[in-house]
Amino acid sequence: MADAVRPVSMSYFRSGLGIDSKADDSPVTIADKEAETVLREMIEAAFPDHGIIGEEHGFKNTDAEFVWVLDPIDGTQAFATGKPLFGTLIALLYEAQPQIGIIDMPALDERWVGVRGETTLFKGKPASTRPCANLSDAWLYATSPQMFISERFDNFENLRESCRRAVYGAECQAYGLMSSGWVDVVCEDTLEPYDYAALIPIIEGAGGVITDWEGKKLTTQSEGHVIAVGDPTLHEKALKALS
Amino acid sequence: MADAVRPVSMSYFRSGLGIDSKADDSPVTIADKEAETVLREMIEAAFPDHGIIGEEHGFKNTDAEFVWVLDPIDGTQAFATGKPLFGTLIALLYEAQPQIGIIDMPALDERWVGVRGETTLFKGKPASTRPCANLSDAWLYATSPQMFISERFDNFENLRESCRRAVYGAECQAYGLMSSGWVDVVCEDTLEPYDYAALIPIIEGAGGVITDWEGKKLTTQSEGHVIAVGDPTLHEKALKALS
Repeated sequence: MADAVRPVSMSYFRSGLGIDSKADDSPVTIADKEAETVLREMIEAAFPDHGIIGEEHGFKNTDAEFVWVLDPIDGTQAFATGKPLFGTLIALLYEAQPQIGIIDMPALDERWVGVRGETTLFKGKPASTRPCANLSDAWLYATSPQMFISERFDNFENLRESCRRAVYGAECQAYGLMSSGWVDVVCEDTLEPYDYAALIPIIEGAGGVITDWEGKKLTTQSEGHVIAVGDPTLHEKALKALS
Repeated sequence: MADAVRPVSMSYFRSGLGIDSKADDSPVTIADKEAETVLREMIEAAFPDHGIIGEEHGFKNTDAEFVWVLDPIDGTQAFATGKPLFGTLIALLYEAQPQIGIIDMPALDERWVGVRGETTLFKGKPASTRPCANLSDAWLYATSPQMFISERFDNFENLRESCRRAVYGAECQAYGLMSSGWVDVVCEDTLEPYDYAALIPIIEGAGGVITDWEGKKLTTQSEGHVIAVGDPTLHEKALKALS
């Protein structure tokens, strides 16, 4: 599925079409919709009974045993500005638990694959998070400070000031970088299920932890504030800083 | 020179050495120093009388007619966290005026080349900025909100709120993206001459404008707050928002 969708998104990336046109007919939106159509058609052909939660074309049969969660172009602002850090996120849930997660970066030819209970793969090779016992040693990623809503910005700032350094703008790749042991913490807000469902098997299969800001497991009903750590011992410390 | 330095930086990128070790012997610093040594040796072999301003190995003969300005790894925080948006910046000044500028992105195989009075090239093909008459339509880039010092953060925030959207973390690539017409404004602070000298011929040769926040030409004596616009008509508007 990730292979099939790459040529679609890449055909619109840096295409020079006017991205300042209305949001509804921007190349990002067109690419997003076309890419999701490709994914949905593959699912519907192979597994007509499966449910689908997609960013662009909505929800279908979400009470099914198996439900796919799709974000064909995550990082639309990166995509819209020619920055090659957009990704395709694909997750498969079984009885609401993520079983498979994929972060695919078409412009970089990089892919993280997580399967529940198995070791995460980066470009086909085992990936793991790195040890980092203290927030003061931790490198933190977030897409943008503007993603944090109202008082949650202050919570994020408290976490940021507790960390060694904050870096911005790796989009969904940040979670992959963490799963490969190059980053220690990723903290974000205003995420939707299609933004985080795929991340769960990847991060857990690399030895990390991902929850909401209260430490609760992420579900399709979560409120969209996400904290992920590479070293599990950082989790409580990060939650405390965020509270 | 950019070709010669790529294998050096790439040999340390995502190398898995402990980047949490002391700043002085981190892989970033080692890579930075080794890469600059390669560049300096090439210059010294070919042009022993030329001056050099380098981030890592200091200044030499800076009163010479020709002076090279080198940042072997720009975007060290990206480099340190496995994000492929670090670059090599190379500039040649003649009587203090930038004549040649190169942004090379080793991990992306992307390169912008600017020569004073000529059209900028991206991957060997002509590049140009795009029209954007109003800040309210403009996409803005900055590496990080934490790069703005004291009251200049408020000035930046005023510009950001005037723009359509702010995106973070494209590092030096942001100026390349602007020169290719995918971004409209880049605004940064606390830059050094080796961070911006190479950008000048690239942006000007693509039809854009780059100055300090007072609208003055950037020199090696500038204070490091930089505003770049793709459409020259945005320049006055951006300066006003920053004041």
